[in-house]
Amino acid sequence: MGKIATRLTELGIELPTPFPPVGSYVACVRTGNQLHVGGHGPTDGTTTVIGKVGSDLTLGAARDAARLTALSILATMQAELGDLDRVRQIVKVFGMVNVAPGFTQTPAVIDGCSDVLVQIFGDAGRHTRSAVGLAELPFGIAVEIELIAEVL
Amino acid sequence: MGKIATRLTELGIELPTPFPPVGSYVACVRTGNQLHVGGHGPTDGTTTVIGKVGSDLTLGAARDAARLTALSILATMQAELGDLDRVRQIVKVFGMVNVAPGFTQTPAVIDGCSDVLVQIFGDAGRHTRSAVGLAELPFGIAVEIELIAEVL
Amino acid sequence: MGKIATRLTELGIELPTPFPPVGSYVACVRTGNQLHVGGHGPTDGTTTVIGKVGSDLTLGAARDAARLTALSILATMQAELGDLDRVRQIVKVFGMVNVAPGFTQTPAVIDGCSDVLVQIFGDAGRHTRSAVGLAELPFGIAVEIELIAEVL
Repeated sequence: MGKIATRLTELGIELPTPFPPVGSYVACVRTGNQLHVGGHGPTDGTTTVIGKVGSDLTLGAARDAARLTALSILATMQAELGDLDRVRQIVKVFGMVNVAPGFTQTPAVIDGCSDVLVQIFGDAGRHTRSAVGLAELPFGIAVEIELIAEVL
Repeated sequence: MGKIATRLTELGIELPTPFPPVGSYVACVRTGNQLHVGGHGPTDGTTTVIGKVGSDLTLGAARDAARLTALSILATMQAELGDLDRVRQIVKVFGMVNVAPGFTQTPAVIDGCSDVLVQIFGDAGRHTRSAVGLAELPFGIAVEIELIAEVL
Repeated sequence: MGKIATRLTELGIELPTPFPPVGSYVACVRTGNQLHVGGHGPTDGTTTVIGKVGSDLTLGAARDAARLTALSILATMQAELGDLDRVRQIVKVFGMVNVAPGFTQTPAVIDGCSDVLVQIFGDAGRHTRSAVGLAELPFGIAVEIELIAEVL
């Protein structure tokens, strides 16, 4: 079993089913050593976290949604790479929060994603990022995150 | 005539005049094998699609605007590359929709861009993407899209 | 003294203290020849420009904030690279403006960033970009900008 697969087991984390994009686009594209993962949402394959953060959802619930979104991204990456040990570095996270007017604690929401990436990958998970408030997200999902990784 | 130029003719698509950025920035920058195309809007050089999607504009009109935006991006890429046959893969689309409050069908809008890319490039047009709702876009344009391509 | 350090002195520009990210993320990550700089805000290390552009802040004040944000990004890049002469090209700027409803002059705001990059780097500062209006930004900052550069 790979190093990261072992680490996921230690952390008690089970990756969800990879999100299947519908239409003319795909969940991720590799170019050279970079893997570009498009926008993912907080879904475990069965249920999806919907709502405006700051009114429909608390900060805590939104942070959990960001963590779930990270796991959905990792499920996509595992399906693409075969083995998450091929992740050399998480380069960049772009975290978008579906905000109610006046909700500005977007970094604390996206910490749910950032923290789990570092728990899993250690220093290789330490990325740069933005964590911002969007007017609307697809189907009203609470969080949408995209990511760039350097891969083997 | 190149393969993609032929395909454009088959599809009856004529690319608009490349959008000329005004100021300290340029329409695209190449780094290594990546071409980064900055934000483009729905303009054919003469008219530009303005308005909030969900109030001023219907979903159908917005989807057409996203398609037009894709063609404006391709006009920029053709001017840069000389020949669109040098596009090896459309890697990533970041689609921004100028939303009226409550409009969440942003993926259906950006499909106007994604679908035409696949019509033109086939599998090489199959990209990853995000399709999200922005509070405001420059000059009130309905859609803004940026793109990363792998090029020869 | 390096070429860019000399140029900064000529322009009377002093870079602020690099912004120290708190948590599981870092201010920038290098992958190959690309340096990805995450979201920076308008801070000189002491004060930070807060507010909605178009209501709390004028266009002029927001443009100054975008310029300050660019300098904060350059401080991060200098800390990472040791010497800004190692910047081969500013590739991409993603400029996010914290807009009041109806404020659409986002390009004029982000010009504060784009213009200073060209003043400092000349043609190597000529980037592609988007300049868009966000619903909310972290802690209510007026502007947030991220950047990709090609570096030696």
